[in-house]
Amino acid sequence: MMLNFEVAKEIILSNAETLPEMTISVNESFGFVLSEDIITDRDFPDTKKSAVDGFAVKLSDGNQYKIVRTIAPGELVELRLEKGETVFVMTGAVVPDDADAVVRVEDCEVKGDWLTVHCSVRIGDNINQVGEEKRAGEKVIEKGSIIDERVYPVLFYLGLKKVKVFKKPKVGIFTTGDELLDIGSEYKKGFVFNTNRYIVESVLRKLNIPFEYYGNVKDDEIAVSRALKEMSEKYDVLISSGGISMGKYDYIKKILNEESYEILVNKTRIKPGSPLMVAKNKKCVIFGMPGYPAAFFTNLVLYFLPYIKKVTGKKDYDHNFVKVELGSDMHSREKSDYFNRANIMLENGKYIAYDLDSQKTSHFINFVNCNGLVRIPQGVGNVEKGYIAEAILFEKEMK
Amino acid sequence: MMLNFEVAKEIILSNAETLPEMTISVNESFGFVLSEDIITDRDFPDTKKSAVDGFAVKLSDGNQYKIVRTIAPGELVELRLEKGETVFVMTGAVVPDDADAVVRVEDCEVKGDWLTVHCSVRIGDNINQVGEEKRAGEKVIEKGSIIDERVYPVLFYLGLKKVKVFKKPKVGIFTTGDELLDIGSEYKKGFVFNTNRYIVESVLRKLNIPFEYYGNVKDDEIAVSRALKEMSEKYDVLISSGGISMGKYDYIKKILNEESYEILVNKTRIKPGSPLMVAKNKKCVIFGMPGYPAAFFTNLVLYFLPYIKKVTGKKDYDHNFVKVELGSDMHSREKSDYFNRANIMLENGKYIAYDLDSQKTSHFINFVNCNGLVRIPQGVGNVEKGYIAEAILFEKEMK
Repeated sequence: MMLNFEVAKEIILSNAETLPEMTISVNESFGFVLSEDIITDRDFPDTKKSAVDGFAVKLSDGNQYKIVRTIAPGELVELRLEKGETVFVMTGAVVPDDADAVVRVEDCEVKGDWLTVHCSVRIGDNINQVGEEKRAGEKVIEKGSIIDERVYPVLFYLGLKKVKVFKKPKVGIFTTGDELLDIGSEYKKGFVFNTNRYIVESVLRKLNIPFEYYGNVKDDEIAVSRALKEMSEKYDVLISSGGISMGKYDYIKKILNEESYEILVNKTRIKPGSPLMVAKNKKCVIFGMPGYPAAFFTNLVLYFLPYIKKVTGKKDYDHNFVKVELGSDMHSREKSDYFNRANIMLENGKYIAYDLDSQKTSHFINFVNCNGLVRIPQGVGNVEKGYIAEAILFEKEMK
Repeated sequence: MMLNFEVAKEIILSNAETLPEMTISVNESFGFVLSEDIITDRDFPDTKKSAVDGFAVKLSDGNQYKIVRTIAPGELVELRLEKGETVFVMTGAVVPDDADAVVRVEDCEVKGDWLTVHCSVRIGDNINQVGEEKRAGEKVIEKGSIIDERVYPVLFYLGLKKVKVFKKPKVGIFTTGDELLDIGSEYKKGFVFNTNRYIVESVLRKLNIPFEYYGNVKDDEIAVSRALKEMSEKYDVLISSGGISMGKYDYIKKILNEESYEILVNKTRIKPGSPLMVAKNKKCVIFGMPGYPAAFFTNLVLYFLPYIKKVTGKKDYDHNFVKVELGSDMHSREKSDYFNRANIMLENGKYIAYDLDSQKTSHFINFVNCNGLVRIPQGVGNVEKGYIAEAILFEKEMK
């Protein structure tokens, strides 16, 4: 039974189980997803610190202070300041507990051991107070956050050495199709070069998820059956390409239907790429993807991406649709959700989506100019320039 | 002399020189930037192909056709169809030259060797024509494109084995500050953990640019001078952290000013992080960055990112400012461009930017909730909810 996009996605997501957690060194954690909330174990800062290069003063009636010493960052000085005394403190240096304020060097004059302050000083000026950034025990990062370019350095900043993260899934892929050539081969007329293997590779590189390529399995029922069985026992997620149409050699469809696989999805009402099959063997979820690269890429973005992000434990795993205005007419048909590849540009603060030269499933080269998919929902049909649609932006999804 | 943001960026960008090109295997090209236009060397497709599983027919007056054989994808069959003959062709299979159209299996009935067609057939139906996707000699990818998740698979699709790309720069980094602890160390009161090293690491991982960390150089003039000299001779780009303020141990500033370095930028009129120094030694550009992680991160995004993207040869190297509406009041002062860290959300198709709990330069933890920087330009001062500003979105820049 052909499923609607949202229904198929829901079924697939309900089969996405996160893997067990593990403890790893913060050094190795880039790209993993936290399986614990991160709580500070001390105040930030845990001593009063100077926000500037300047003089920490214990306020007196006049504007003259005696300079008693210098404190560099990292120095912990046990020192009582008397009224009218000052110490030179560098940015980030610990300020003596009983200093009232720090005065910037720009606002002072030094003669020998004596400082003259040329500005008005309020208590607390230029001092970072204990715990002002965070108090010990506060939650600072939520479980389910990906350790990206913001979170990764903060883990070091907090002084953590190890963190708990979700294990990453093992993703396997095989391709089918006797017409496929791989990169080492000379071109032969009528053949096509293996592309889907590299679509998976690059998308998973973006997501920091490793994968293994099993090879291209020849169009032979026994070989395909064996590949499906072996790999679905070895990997958490399996992606195959081709073999799910109505052709004589479309063995993946045949085998998933006939052998002991649980079928989750068989065709979805989208274009391009309706003949997707998703099945399960014990714990492995198998994505039987269509062979045309445009259809393969589209299904990867629509179904596999939210699925694999949920498996990795990411709290924001679902699509972030953005509102776009069409900059050109777009084709669709009423009976499917059309996901038209588009070049989506920000113009005066609005996303404008331009159609590409072709939306044919058999064409793929124009993906180089495609940064998102515009959804024209079922029942709408062709739409004109100015139509407001929802779109998936790759830059928002592949992270 | 303190420079305005745009002026400083312009000076830095004018010192960004791309490196020589090299030829590499397509397999290794992910994350590189093309130094050549990519031109197709043949038609796509280069034979007529079937878009569906169906029957390639040579039209006759009736709706009965004699099935003469099956053609699988990759098979090149020398065959002349006579009027009233048909062959079964799978999706992607080569269609005999003299076939008029392909009829979907769903629209046919087969009895023995005979096919009955149950729909009207027009010439060209379901056939992908020679060269319809691209003609031999057409430009398909522009020089300066990054080989990302769209371009990478297309290179394989085109059957390329090698491509010309710009060499990647060698980026070196060292940190300064005796108060810095690295991840192996036990925490000591008053100290801070090295964070900037990991900011660079994660941002460069996003950009697929390798870097080497030299270590933390102690606050000693000779040691800092040696590190600057050694590393600026070894790397194309050098990043240092700390040592550029007005404190006694701010040796980087002192050395860049006194020794034979050409100063390009000395302080920029931005917050946070105005004390940036950019200098040059022969071919190496040195970014002397402020030590506070928030200031370091901001300068990395504002100046280093467009610089390094230009060095790698990327045609779109400059910032993509997006228009945002403030969802909360924001602080700034008239004399600087303020780059407030913000959480920027898409709401009803508009970007709404929310202030974070603190904008203090000495605070860094809230970067985990920061996905962009909102620019409040010089001369504006504090702004209120509803104000329309420009913002830098990390997801748009770090790719």
